[in-house]
Amino acid sequence: MKTHTLLMPLDMHLHLRDGVMLENIAPLSAYSFSGALVMPNLVPPVTSLEDIKAYKERIVAAVPNDYFEPYMTLFYKNYDKAFLESVAGHITAIKLYPAGITTNSEGGVSSFNVEEMRPTLEMMSLLGIPLCVHGETDGFVMDREAEFMSIYELLAKNFPKLKIIMEHITTKAAVDMLDKYENLYATVTVHHLIITLDDVAGGMLKPHLFCKPIAKRPEDREALLKVALEAHPKVMFGSDSAPHPQHKKESCGCAAGVFTAPIALQLLCDVFDKHDKLENLQAFVSDNAQNIYGICAEFKEVVLEKRPFVVPESYSGVVPMYAGETINWAIESVE
Amino acid sequence: MKTHTLLMPLDMHLHLRDGVMLENIAPLSAYSFSGALVMPNLVPPVTSLEDIKAYKERIVAAVPNDYFEPYMTLFYKNYDKAFLESVAGHITAIKLYPAGITTNSEGGVSSFNVEEMRPTLEMMSLLGIPLCVHGETDGFVMDREAEFMSIYELLAKNFPKLKIIMEHITTKAAVDMLDKYENLYATVTVHHLIITLDDVAGGMLKPHLFCKPIAKRPEDREALLKVALEAHPKVMFGSDSAPHPQHKKESCGCAAGVFTAPIALQLLCDVFDKHDKLENLQAFVSDNAQNIYGICAEFKEVVLEKRPFVVPESYSGVVPMYAGETINWAIESVE
Repeated sequence: MKTHTLLMPLDMHLHLRDGVMLENIAPLSAYSFSGALVMPNLVPPVTSLEDIKAYKERIVAAVPNDYFEPYMTLFYKNYDKAFLESVAGHITAIKLYPAGITTNSEGGVSSFNVEEMRPTLEMMSLLGIPLCVHGETDGFVMDREAEFMSIYELLAKNFPKLKIIMEHITTKAAVDMLDKYENLYATVTVHHLIITLDDVAGGMLKPHLFCKPIAKRPEDREALLKVALEAHPKVMFGSDSAPHPQHKKESCGCAAGVFTAPIALQLLCDVFDKHDKLENLQAFVSDNAQNIYGICAEFKEVVLEKRPFVVPESYSGVVPMYAGETINWAIESVE
Repeated sequence: MKTHTLLMPLDMHLHLRDGVMLENIAPLSAYSFSGALVMPNLVPPVTSLEDIKAYKERIVAAVPNDYFEPYMTLFYKNYDKAFLESVAGHITAIKLYPAGITTNSEGGVSSFNVEEMRPTLEMMSLLGIPLCVHGETDGFVMDREAEFMSIYELLAKNFPKLKIIMEHITTKAAVDMLDKYENLYATVTVHHLIITLDDVAGGMLKPHLFCKPIAKRPEDREALLKVALEAHPKVMFGSDSAPHPQHKKESCGCAAGVFTAPIALQLLCDVFDKHDKLENLQAFVSDNAQNIYGICAEFKEVVLEKRPFVVPESYSGVVPMYAGETINWAIESVE
C-alpha cells in the first residue's frame, strides 16, 4: 500500500478558540501537527502579554498527550515600542484584521493610514515580528481580496523589512503578488485548493464549505494549486480550520469557517498525489514555514497511507469538511 | 398615510408545488394576485393534458375563497403536432428546463439541438404558445446565465415567431438581450431587484436568500432595476417564489428557492417607491404581462399602504424572505 511520510507538519493559520471548544479540538491538531500558528481573534482578542501567556497555557493544558507547539500571535493594534519589545519573545507574529471583516474581528483596523501604523510596523520590522494579514476589503464578496491588493502593495512598499504574510489567499490576484514584492508571503488552506464557489453555492447551498474569504472562481483555484504543488518557497500551508458548533453552521445565518484540522494532512496527500507532486508536500506543510518564520519545529513523523477513510460526521459537535464521506488517504502512524 | 393601488397584479413565474404544500401556500398568492403562471416542475413533471387539468383542479380547490387564475404551463419536451394542438387551449406557456439545472428539472433538455427541437418549437410558434426558459448552463455558478445567452440567441434567431421568455433574469447580460431580439422577453423577481451575492454570502451565509439563478453582482442588480423601474414593455414581474420546508433550507445541504409570494407586492411597492417610480409598478406587475401573453386578467384591486409591517417568521413551516423583519409597506385591502 502506498504511504507517504511527513516530518514536522505545521499549520500556519489555525483557530483553536477557547474554553470547551479549545479542549475539544486542540487535541485533533496536536495529534498530527508539530505546531500551529494560533490566531488571536478570541472574545476579547489577545492584546496583552498576560493574554498571550494565559492563552498559551490553556492551549498546552488542552493537549496533554502530544507534543505540540502553539506559535502565538497578537491581535494587531497600534502598539508602542516598549510593549512590542516586551512581547517579542512570546509571539511568532502579529495578526491584522480589517475591522468587522470576519469572526471576532470587530476591534481590527478600520482605515489603513500608513503614517498612523508606521511606528508599530517599523518596530515590528526591527524586532523581526512578521505581520499576518486577513486581506479583504468590505466590498462585493467576490472582489474583496482582489481589492485588498493595493493595501498589500502599500504595506510592502512602505515597510520593505517587514515580513507580510497574506493569509489564506484565494485568488490569482494574490498569487500574482508573491513575485512582485520580496517581503510578501502567503498561506493557503487545503479547502481552497479543492473547492470553488460552485461547491458552496452551485448545487445545494453547503454551509460547511462557507468561509471567509469565500471560495472563488476555477481560475483562482488553479493559480493557488500551481504555487502549492510546486511548493513555491514563499507559500505555506495554513488550514484556517475554524470550528463552529453545528447549530451555528446549519441555521438561517451560518457562521463562516471550514473545519479541516483533523483531515488536513490526509486531504493534502490526496491533492498532491493526484497531481503527482507528493515530493513537494513536505516543503509546503513544513519546510517553507520554518524558513519564512525562522522557526525550528519539534520532531514529529506522520505516516499517511493511501486507503479509504470515512470522515466522522462530527468531532465533539463540530462538523468537518467531508463529514460522512470517504477520502482517499488516512493517517497510519504518528511518532 | 401614503397608499398605492394595483389592479390585477400577476405573478408570471410561481411555484405552487403540490399536496399539503400547495394547500398551504396557494391561498397566499391567491389573496393578493389576480393570477399566476404556474411552473410545471412537479415530481413527476406536468407533461400530459390529464396532468394539466388535474393540477389546475387541485390549485383551484386549494383557493376556495379567492378568485385566482392559475395560468398553466407544460414541462418542455419534444412534443408532436397532435399533442400540442390538444393542449394549446389549456396552457399559457411551455416551460423549458435544462436537465438537472434546478429543483425537479431532471427530465429537462440535455442538449440544445435546434433541429431536434424544430418541430416542437415551430408548432408552438404556429399555435402562439410562448416558450418560458430557465436559462442557465451547467458552468461556474456566477457565469451560468451569461453563458446561456448564446442559446437564447440560437432560439431567437431560428424561431423568430416564437415568444421566448427569459425567466427570472439576474444579469446585465440578459438585460442587454432584450433589445437585441424582438421575440425575447423576460421576467424579473423581486428579490433579484433587492439582493446581490453579498446578501447571500457576504456576511453570514443566508440559506433563505439562496436561489437559482443565484443573486449576482451589484452591476447586474442595477441593470435589472433599470428595466423594472422603467417598466420596460418586454419585462414582467415573476416572483419565482419557491417554498421549501424550513428543514430543507436550514441544513447541511440547503435547497434553492426564496419564498416571497405573500410579501412580493409589498416589497415591490417599497422598491418602486424608494426610486420614486411607483407610477410604473402597474405596468411591471400586470399590464406588460397581459400584453405579452395576450391574457385578460380578472378584476382584483389591491390597496397597499406605506406603514411598518412585520413579516411572519413562517407561513405553515415555510420561512419567507425577511422573516421576522419589518418592511415598509403593507396590504391594506383587496377587492
